[in-house]
Amino acid sequence: MAKSPIEFWFDFSSGYAYFAAMAVDDLAARHGREVSWRPYMLGVAFKKTGVRGLSSTPMKSDYARLDWARLARRTGLPFQPPANHPIVQLPASRAYYWVEETAPEKTHDFGRALFHAYFAEARDLADPAVVAAVGAEVGLPAAGIEAGLASEPMKAKLKAASDEAISKNVFGSPFFLCDGEPFWGFDRMDMLEEWLETGGW
Amino acid sequence: MAKSPIEFWFDFSSGYAYFAAMAVDDLAARHGREVSWRPYMLGVAFKKTGVRGLSSTPMKSDYARLDWARLARRTGLPFQPPANHPIVQLPASRAYYWVEETAPEKTHDFGRALFHAYFAEARDLADPAVVAAVGAEVGLPAAGIEAGLASEPMKAKLKAASDEAISKNVFGSPFFLCDGEPFWGFDRMDMLEEWLETGGW
Repeated sequence: MAKSPIEFWFDFSSGYAYFAAMAVDDLAARHGREVSWRPYMLGVAFKKTGVRGLSSTPMKSDYARLDWARLARRTGLPFQPPANHPIVQLPASRAYYWVEETAPEKTHDFGRALFHAYFAEARDLADPAVVAAVGAEVGLPAAGIEAGLASEPMKAKLKAASDEAISKNVFGSPFFLCDGEPFWGFDRMDMLEEWLETGGW
Repeated sequence: MAKSPIEFWFDFSSGYAYFAAMAVDDLAARHGREVSWRPYMLGVAFKKTGVRGLSSTPMKSDYARLDWARLARRTGLPFQPPANHPIVQLPASRAYYWVEETAPEKTHDFGRALFHAYFAEARDLADPAVVAAVGAEVGLPAAGIEAGLASEPMKAKLKAASDEAISKNVFGSPFFLCDGEPFWGFDRMDMLEEWLETGGW
């Protein structure tokens, strides 16, 4: 029987999720696993936890900026989000679920392209036309994306995903569930990999 | 010229600091470094960041409990804090600074013994007599500790340490400063070690 996919929960505005997105499929593949990418609205979790986003938390925001720049140097990934970071990523997240329904083999490429557009090219993903253009760059139909991300079924799907996150006690980004075992944070990917290697502790 | 010590900032009620405390001196020694242990009142930082403690944050508290138990299995360290965890660790923290003044060669042994008493034996460190008894177990004078932790100079010293933490943008526990470079969290000790090995990125 095939092993369950690793659930990769994230918000497209999360700097740590960007670094995770560029590494998670390779990590899973090393252990014969697939990944189920699950964009959701981190703000919904913040309402439950009473936590504010990193970028609006004193001291932590400065640390996060330093840390992201440091991770960029360490990983060799570019890191240059828009000046108005963080934004609410409704268009990108709804577009992701539309692609999942219409061209599932393209979802991860599209997800990585969205992260790259935002965090490496500072493109304005609040604009549905930009989200559609990013899709076109990985071979998806721009007009379809723009219609899909504005549709009621995709609004409902993103809402349901956010509700599902809460129901599974997912409260951060990135957040991984591996056979039900939770791992919170980019800096826990090593531990997730050790879990996969060893079968856990 | 000797290399600067690594500053290890922590609160004696922090589960992640417990795991860090048991590993940080060995990590530093592998790279020819000393460690300067700096207990402080994490609640002072919380007032600046607006953050609540893990144990009083919905969803995160459940995750932390699961994660601490998992880390205990992974590291082989016992983990059994008191039922009323977390407590405000004024007696232990002030006692630590008294030992630093009077028997500096004993501070780390005392610090580890305090962490062990609280997190492995569920002893009530809110009680100055218990803090003093822990000191006696590592060869320190119980009466001296009990007088020291109640003294005005040690109250002032802990307050100054907490103010210094804020001034250095230390907002978590454990939190490491290595030649000014900040590393927040037990799960960043690998990155700290890589920084020491490579000279950073």
